[in-house]
Amino acid sequence: MTEFRIGGRKGFASDNWSGVSPDVMEALRAVNHAHHPAYGENDPLLEQAQELFRQHFGPDSQTFFVYNGTGANVLAVQQLLRSWEAVVAPHSAHLNEDEGGAPEKFTGGKILTVHTEDGKISPSDVEPFLNSIGFQHHVQPRLISISQSTEKGTLYSCGEIAELARFAHQNNMFLHVDGARIANAAVAMDVSFREMIVDTGVDVLSFGGTKNGLMFGEAVVFLNKELARGFEYSRKQGMQLASKMRFILAQFIVYLGNGLWKRNAEQANNMARLLADSIVSVPGISLSRPVQANGVFAVMPKKLIPRLQKEYFFHVWDEDTGEVRLMCSFDTSREDVDGLVHAARRLMQNVDDR
Amino acid sequence: MTEFRIGGRKGFASDNWSGVSPDVMEALRAVNHAHHPAYGENDPLLEQAQELFRQHFGPDSQTFFVYNGTGANVLAVQQLLRSWEAVVAPHSAHLNEDEGGAPEKFTGGKILTVHTEDGKISPSDVEPFLNSIGFQHHVQPRLISISQSTEKGTLYSCGEIAELARFAHQNNMFLHVDGARIANAAVAMDVSFREMIVDTGVDVLSFGGTKNGLMFGEAVVFLNKELARGFEYSRKQGMQLASKMRFILAQFIVYLGNGLWKRNAEQANNMARLLADSIVSVPGISLSRPVQANGVFAVMPKKLIPRLQKEYFFHVWDEDTGEVRLMCSFDTSREDVDGLVHAARRLMQNVDDR
Amino acid sequence: MTEFRIGGRKGFASDNWSGVSPDVMEALRAVNHAHHPAYGENDPLLEQAQELFRQHFGPDSQTFFVYNGTGANVLAVQQLLRSWEAVVAPHSAHLNEDEGGAPEKFTGGKILTVHTEDGKISPSDVEPFLNSIGFQHHVQPRLISISQSTEKGTLYSCGEIAELARFAHQNNMFLHVDGARIANAAVAMDVSFREMIVDTGVDVLSFGGTKNGLMFGEAVVFLNKELARGFEYSRKQGMQLASKMRFILAQFIVYLGNGLWKRNAEQANNMARLLADSIVSVPGISLSRPVQANGVFAVMPKKLIPRLQKEYFFHVWDEDTGEVRLMCSFDTSREDVDGLVHAARRLMQNVDDR
Amino acid sequence: MTEFRIGGRKGFASDNWSGVSPDVMEALRAVNHAHHPAYGENDPLLEQAQELFRQHFGPDSQTFFVYNGTGANVLAVQQLLRSWEAVVAPHSAHLNEDEGGAPEKFTGGKILTVHTEDGKISPSDVEPFLNSIGFQHHVQPRLISISQSTEKGTLYSCGEIAELARFAHQNNMFLHVDGARIANAAVAMDVSFREMIVDTGVDVLSFGGTKNGLMFGEAVVFLNKELARGFEYSRKQGMQLASKMRFILAQFIVYLGNGLWKRNAEQANNMARLLADSIVSVPGISLSRPVQANGVFAVMPKKLIPRLQKEYFFHVWDEDTGEVRLMCSFDTSREDVDGLVHAARRLMQNVDDR
Repeated sequence: MTEFRIGGRKGFASDNWSGVSPDVMEALRAVNHAHHPAYGENDPLLEQAQELFRQHFGPDSQTFFVYNGTGANVLAVQQLLRSWEAVVAPHSAHLNEDEGGAPEKFTGGKILTVHTEDGKISPSDVEPFLNSIGFQHHVQPRLISISQSTEKGTLYSCGEIAELARFAHQNNMFLHVDGARIANAAVAMDVSFREMIVDTGVDVLSFGGTKNGLMFGEAVVFLNKELARGFEYSRKQGMQLASKMRFILAQFIVYLGNGLWKRNAEQANNMARLLADSIVSVPGISLSRPVQANGVFAVMPKKLIPRLQKEYFFHVWDEDTGEVRLMCSFDTSREDVDGLVHAARRLMQNVDDR
Repeated sequence: MTEFRIGGRKGFASDNWSGVSPDVMEALRAVNHAHHPAYGENDPLLEQAQELFRQHFGPDSQTFFVYNGTGANVLAVQQLLRSWEAVVAPHSAHLNEDEGGAPEKFTGGKILTVHTEDGKISPSDVEPFLNSIGFQHHVQPRLISISQSTEKGTLYSCGEIAELARFAHQNNMFLHVDGARIANAAVAMDVSFREMIVDTGVDVLSFGGTKNGLMFGEAVVFLNKELARGFEYSRKQGMQLASKMRFILAQFIVYLGNGLWKRNAEQANNMARLLADSIVSVPGISLSRPVQANGVFAVMPKKLIPRLQKEYFFHVWDEDTGEVRLMCSFDTSREDVDGLVHAARRLMQNVDDR
Repeated sequence: MTEFRIGGRKGFASDNWSGVSPDVMEALRAVNHAHHPAYGENDPLLEQAQELFRQHFGPDSQTFFVYNGTGANVLAVQQLLRSWEAVVAPHSAHLNEDEGGAPEKFTGGKILTVHTEDGKISPSDVEPFLNSIGFQHHVQPRLISISQSTEKGTLYSCGEIAELARFAHQNNMFLHVDGARIANAAVAMDVSFREMIVDTGVDVLSFGGTKNGLMFGEAVVFLNKELARGFEYSRKQGMQLASKMRFILAQFIVYLGNGLWKRNAEQANNMARLLADSIVSVPGISLSRPVQANGVFAVMPKKLIPRLQKEYFFHVWDEDTGEVRLMCSFDTSREDVDGLVHAARRLMQNVDDR
Repeated sequence: MTEFRIGGRKGFASDNWSGVSPDVMEALRAVNHAHHPAYGENDPLLEQAQELFRQHFGPDSQTFFVYNGTGANVLAVQQLLRSWEAVVAPHSAHLNEDEGGAPEKFTGGKILTVHTEDGKISPSDVEPFLNSIGFQHHVQPRLISISQSTEKGTLYSCGEIAELARFAHQNNMFLHVDGARIANAAVAMDVSFREMIVDTGVDVLSFGGTKNGLMFGEAVVFLNKELARGFEYSRKQGMQLASKMRFILAQFIVYLGNGLWKRNAEQANNMARLLADSIVSVPGISLSRPVQANGVFAVMPKKLIPRLQKEYFFHVWDEDTGEVRLMCSFDTSREDVDGLVHAARRLMQNVDDR
């Protein structure tokens, strides 16, 4: 029998360091029999999954399934742009910083960025780029991309999203939402996907699942199916069409169909809340940003960081200030949070002793 | 409890219409606990999987894991080419016909194709393209790509592969093998991967697993790790870096580590052999190509095709001649083969009656 | 004073081995004073040039100026395609064979080719590619591209062009004409550009000038300006926007405005006719293709070729058959033709003597 | 006889609003006879031009000719990068701001930018990007690109260039210089190209001519020809290979061969100096940046700008502050400078009167 070299204990590095929900494993098992058409073509599971998405995102929406979040973002963006058109996004956007140049490579276009403290942009941030419109030497801004929740752990209110969408449409632009953590956002704000995405006027959404308990697979949701023309071809050309598609479909069916998205996000968010509340009780540690979803950003003494990482791994956000990011996941438990806080308190004493 | 709309009975459409081996499901379950580093970075499973690949492909090889076969092919090809260099491949290559233009999109280059009957090319097919070398108006041939087994169900002998590799190297070119069905080829030829790929001088291999019982994930194997410089960045930029990498790794560990690749391929090949032998006993049906791996190509009366497809789905290869492709998979059973042959015989009588 | 190392005598290599018409040199001189806006923006010469193009191509047309023929072809094609859509063209198309992979690089798409003897395609050649429409694994044919005159020296009749345009539009496709030698074609057929291009239903034309006496600069003519949306940006991104645009504009103003295109093409075509008629009088030399514009294809003894090339350079078209291409240019004179024919006759005797 | 709609009087908009030097026109005329090989292949003028470049840039250099500055920059950058590698450049770089996304489109890569006041960067600006090296989610910085003179009219000293080159090479990076105005820089600094480019360790140079009196054509100079492998193919694929190459070659031969580059740059620089000295005598106008080459940046009352532009056109650099850019060209005369200054003084009185 094969022995696997198993990873270590749970930590707070990222919500994609966790495994998958038991329901997901069960769904994979449930659809693993007989033959399903490859690539989702005429697979009854495809219609089942799409129905669930239409329940959340409305009858005019159209949903496509891809492998990962970078694929979802890049293909969504490409769909709405020609190569001489550009995305406007916060500099901290995953699209800009953490996708290895995939957007530029695949769309041939440019990302125009705005430096922000909280990872959020507003119409006034986009406005200066409009000066390039009609100037043949400049790329033409055509799409605004925001992340919900953001890479800095913050949230856009529904009003802010609606305002961006209105601004975009007034200026012949589109609005894209990178929803790698969309479930955490919806739960935190206590709104439905419809209220947050459909009613606000978003054009296309990268709907994430992997960071909230799925194994692989993300969805690109066009809120108006007219915008999706030809997307099946660009997905294939983008190397994002899964052959054994049933295994992505089954995950999303259980995710949306039995409330898994909500349960998982609630757990992650609750644990982030708990962590935020308890870690500040450790002398020398303070929160550096508001905790709005499942990420906790804190500042701690630099000497503490490597010692604490040995017990519970997490990422340093800013070497200079000692800011760290502590992500909670669907599988983060009260014991994990308590363990981290206790370790921090214990190690702080040693740090202080020196 | 979620109900899934389950697909129909087994057929002979393609080896990616099947589900996954029980061992694969068990491997996924086995690694689903606690936290593993995302993206394989410092994941002990990565080293475990790579060790297994080095056992098969030698200590100089370096292996990277991606999502799917198109990703493996396109990234392998891109690694060895600049955009003004070209691949030479059979016209029937998956790379050329069935990847939606991904190679051109991603490499920026051109595929120079050779029309062949059996899906195989030899040095004399590549030779005419060498005339372009040094001519600045033409793309520069730099890579030969072959499939093993081919899209037409045929095989290259080790001698033929070695000859192509030699020819490639003599002309400052590389040799790539699309091994979407490499296990079926190795089993059919009763040779090891080392004999077929390393000893022959192949430069880079797309090592397939999905068509032979895995859920998702393929590997790109550079036989000389010098050729792999920077590949981790192009994989990310190519949107082929899985975040919960452990679930790809676990599959390959069980695939290579306990002989699953061999058992699965043997079953598929044996069933193809059985099918080939029995279907010719049906009057009006004959084989159109030699059966060398797990694909059976046969010609049958055109009236029979849609009727038989209703009972066991399969793809028509050539509308004009009535040629069909019957793919066997790791989960094809003796009963499935018998069922198909009996159905064909029964339906032929009706066809004849009219 | 600078001494230039001047080239040799005139030959028959290509119509871009010639210099420029005296009228062109005079036009360059005439506009070389004071300041003109760069890039053609608000340059009165731009409007003057565009008016001339509208006279020929109708009020709905819109014309853009670029550097060269490859630029014109690639940008025209890109304008009408998304990267997952494809061009259908003869295999011998300049676009396919002689642009170094620029179409694939820049459009990200694929060229689907048809092997033809005479360099021409018809709807029945395109038809098989329509089977890919709607099949997500294949690139989607969206544009037909033909050359007028073709790379083999042949011509499409207006009826043939109209038939291709009709077929294209019926199948949701566009028709592009590579008109690197469009003036030679129009003169040879004794039709206007309007009859050949507008009345037949062409969508976009690469309008060549360099091969017919200009120094540099080609034009992309959209017959329906609706199709040109955003082209100024893709021209810039395609590195084809000239800063001192006035010097391209002046050339086209003199080219279209005082009949230079016609006079030059007439001379080239007449000389080709004369050459065709006289060279067949040399024993051992025969025409291999009909002479319809300014290219003469002939078969001659292989031993003769290198000797004749020393006196009048020209290109070998087919090493195996001894087919050569003899291009006439606007500056080819009766003396040049006579000189070539006499040299051929003289050298043939030596060849025969051996 | 064709009448051309001639542009207006000279202004200070840009050095590419001017025409060409009489020597250039004469050079074009001088090579306009008989036949030269197209594309520079075996054209004796190619060797003549390359010899001149080797005299300036050393025997190890290799020079290629392209159409324009964007082409030169983009192809130079692409040559040294894979698509997952990145350029580091000032945000104000032409490459980043004014090439319509061509670098991203053509290289598939990313430009990492540094905001600077004076358009210059130093090693300490590049250093932070080195943190990405080895991190697979980020593009890998591989090339530093600077402009000499910069888009802000400033200059790098030879020491500063050498320091950047050393830093680049220490970190496995290359150094590119966008030399659209390299002649103005060399003249202003009173150094040779060799001292500024070769002795400092630059890897590749975009050598401009169009902004200093040529009609079209720029050069890409690799200081070490080893880096140029395959460049002729990427130039073709980049649509930058001129067919009637002789007309670019002749311009560069006269430009480098008889000191035209120096005379033209001296005139432009001298006029910029004169302009800077005299315009500050107008009350209300002051210089906003040091005048180091042929660009003068000044701040003037916003009401004055449109009135003055009617007499001598120039571009506004910053709408908010009233900063304008006044470019001098090889054809700017003392009368032009005086005229502008007088007009400014006269119009200022009206402005003041209100």
